Amino acid sequence: MNYKEKALLLHEQWKGKLEIGTRAPLETAEDLSLAYTPGVAEPCKKIAENPDLSYTYTGRGNMVAVISDGSAVLGLGNIGALGAMPVMEGKCALFKRFGGVDAFPIVLDTQKEDEIVSAVAAIAPSFGGINLEDISAPRCFTIERTLKEKLDIPVFHDDQHGTAIVVLAAFINALRLTGKKAENCTVTVSGPGAAGNAIAKLLVRSGVGNVIMCDRKGALWRGRDNMDWAKTELAEITNKENVKGDLRTVIKGADMFVGVSGPGLVDADMVKSMNSKAVVFGLANPVPEILPAQALAAGAFIAGSGRSDFPNQVNNVLAFPGVFRGALDCRARTISEGMKIAAAYALADYVKDELRPDCVIPSAFSPVADSVAAAVKACAIDEKLNRI
Amino acid sequence: MNYKEKALLLHEQWKGKLEIGTRAPLETAEDLSLAYTPGVAEPCKKIAENPDLSYTYTGRGNMVAVISDGSAVLGLGNIGALGAMPVMEGKCALFKRFGGVDAFPIVLDTQKEDEIVSAVAAIAPSFGGINLEDISAPRCFTIERTLKEKLDIPVFHDDQHGTAIVVLAAFINALRLTGKKAENCTVTVSGPGAAGNAIAKLLVRSGVGNVIMCDRKGALWRGRDNMDWAKTELAEITNKENVKGDLRTVIKGADMFVGVSGPGLVDADMVKSMNSKAVVFGLANPVPEILPAQALAAGAFIAGSGRSDFPNQVNNVLAFPGVFRGALDCRARTISEGMKIAAAYALADYVKDELRPDCVIPSAFSPVADSVAAAVKACAIDEKLNRI
Repeated sequence: MNYKEKALLLHEQWKGKLEIGTRAPLETAEDLSLAYTPGVAEPCKKIAENPDLSYTYTGRGNMVAVISDGSAVLGLGNIGALGAMPVMEGKCALFKRFGGVDAFPIVLDTQKEDEIVSAVAAIAPSFGGINLEDISAPRCFTIERTLKEKLDIPVFHDDQHGTAIVVLAAFINALRLTGKKAENCTVTVSGPGAAGNAIAKLLVRSGVGNVIMCDRKGALWRGRDNMDWAKTELAEITNKENVKGDLRTVIKGADMFVGVSGPGLVDADMVKSMNSKAVVFGLANPVPEILPAQALAAGAFIAGSGRSDFPNQVNNVLAFPGVFRGALDCRARTISEGMKIAAAYALADYVKDELRPDCVIPSAFSPVADSVAAAVKACAIDEKLNRI
Repeated sequence: MNYKEKALLLHEQWKGKLEIGTRAPLETAEDLSLAYTPGVAEPCKKIAENPDLSYTYTGRGNMVAVISDGSAVLGLGNIGALGAMPVMEGKCALFKRFGGVDAFPIVLDTQKEDEIVSAVAAIAPSFGGINLEDISAPRCFTIERTLKEKLDIPVFHDDQHGTAIVVLAAFINALRLTGKKAENCTVTVSGPGAAGNAIAKLLVRSGVGNVIMCDRKGALWRGRDNMDWAKTELAEITNKENVKGDLRTVIKGADMFVGVSGPGLVDADMVKSMNSKAVVFGLANPVPEILPAQALAAGAFIAGSGRSDFPNQVNNVLAFPGVFRGALDCRARTISEGMKIAAAYALADYVKDELRPDCVIPSAFSPVADSVAAAVKACAIDEKLNRI
């Protein structure tokens, strides 16, 4: 039986990867009168007087919604709400396993931005945070931005920021190994979707000297046509010298390449055209822009991918459990750019003792969540975004 | 420490009465590749091809949403979404404890009917059924009706139908003990809110000869003014002889009284004015329309209340876990009037061997859910409302 058949069989046996457990005993009439009527009226009244007590008397403070409209699921594309559910259940299971966060999957029977925003805002009081998942670009940017403005709990689109945090961690450790300085580096990013957008922004925010973003037509530059509003926005903050040309042209001299685009887009000659001690991360799944071994053979100093069968795997599970753990622990109002950068440094620091070109990122099963959570929480407190 | 202090303390210790458990192991890289990427793509693709497989490969088939807008919570009134959460968590715990149903609490940050309908419809693909809770009348009727039309999964407002099912069970057993026939009986119901409305409709549907519904101004009758649309609708199907007058007037000669209104509305003289072998259920909580002991002293044959410290307690927990269990087990498209009546007969039959005037309803901890579920499922199949 191959892994596909095995995955199907297991999903059929599980009939859902999650279940609801209860913490309140319900064995006697007294139990019932305390966990339910009439006793339950007491916490209800306290919360009605002071909404902050919802964190004291309900599970809200450790409960995150994992929400998708099924418009961009894995590499499968727009398969709709029901089709997305196995992924959302899996994500929730990872939240619990790696971060101790209770998470519940919600798939939405609409792909209209305003209806998604309304539905998520309506159910928000049930949760301490919102993790958006597998929503197509550029819709995901508007939806996340609008929800962040409307809600006073963390809203986090993991396809964007989870990936960006792990890539930034890899970049930080690459600087440590190469002795380069961020402000002198150029990073070329291929694929301005959800992940690429967030990677570019977080690298810029972290002090990278120049980020050049490419789509199928080549570099995004100020004044180019055929760009949606999200690409236009990206062109404003990237590509310092406003260079033009295809990926083969703009990868020349780059210190790092990050691909979140498609299989096989980078060849040995392109790697050879990069700066010395080049860092090459082809993250397209399952077939990356260039395999790590090919990149290294072409002279790259550090190489990584999204795959678990090679070193330096960029896996979001390194980020989101700890990020939410930290945000929930201090009841942060939001997850700021600073908190994401703090998470990246925590990840980078985690491998410090064994830092090598083939180990710039912790492995997916490393118990990093506590370190990430502590850094995220400290940053939230520092930025006065915490409520406890 | 009194029960109120104890309930508060326990709620603070629990910090939420629910938690998310995982059924898929996530200990090794292989586990991760089966429960999450890349293996998870397989069930996603199957469901995208055939939406019914969402019941095979996800937890949807055993997952119910418990949804409230906090507009009519217990006897506390409109305390809002956050204040309602402890009740919703408790309800979910009862679903699991008594019916083996996974249930998740959702409180809504809106009290507009159309926004509630939109939000619930949007999240519906995540669930196998929707339990509405503590939504004020007459809004609850519109919301439930609209959602039932829109969705092909069960939508059930428990404050209405749960109570109605248990009251009908009590009535069925009262007929057995008194030898009366339903078509010859008059039932006077005080309080045309959510519960009263559903009680009246279910009794009429079950063949009760005459139901007379009262609000604060007296009987609802065709042509009366000061009635909202829900009361007007009720007046159409109740009060055969279109009698007028206050509760004291229209309780005369009744075979059964059901109060879902307020404390102390019924006195001994009113009970004495009822038909012989009268049945008196004052369900107002915590102080009923008349205490069972007072009703019996005034000559009632059977008396009950909503309180756990007296016999014949009308407790919804007897109904909703089994009703949903049965509906989920056959993947019913809806919960019909027939399925509710079947649930009531199952409850009534459950006490058959020990049927006495002070035992017309099973006690709250009786393991009735399997019997109720079997009856509900059989009825759904009979009415061709099942999908498996």
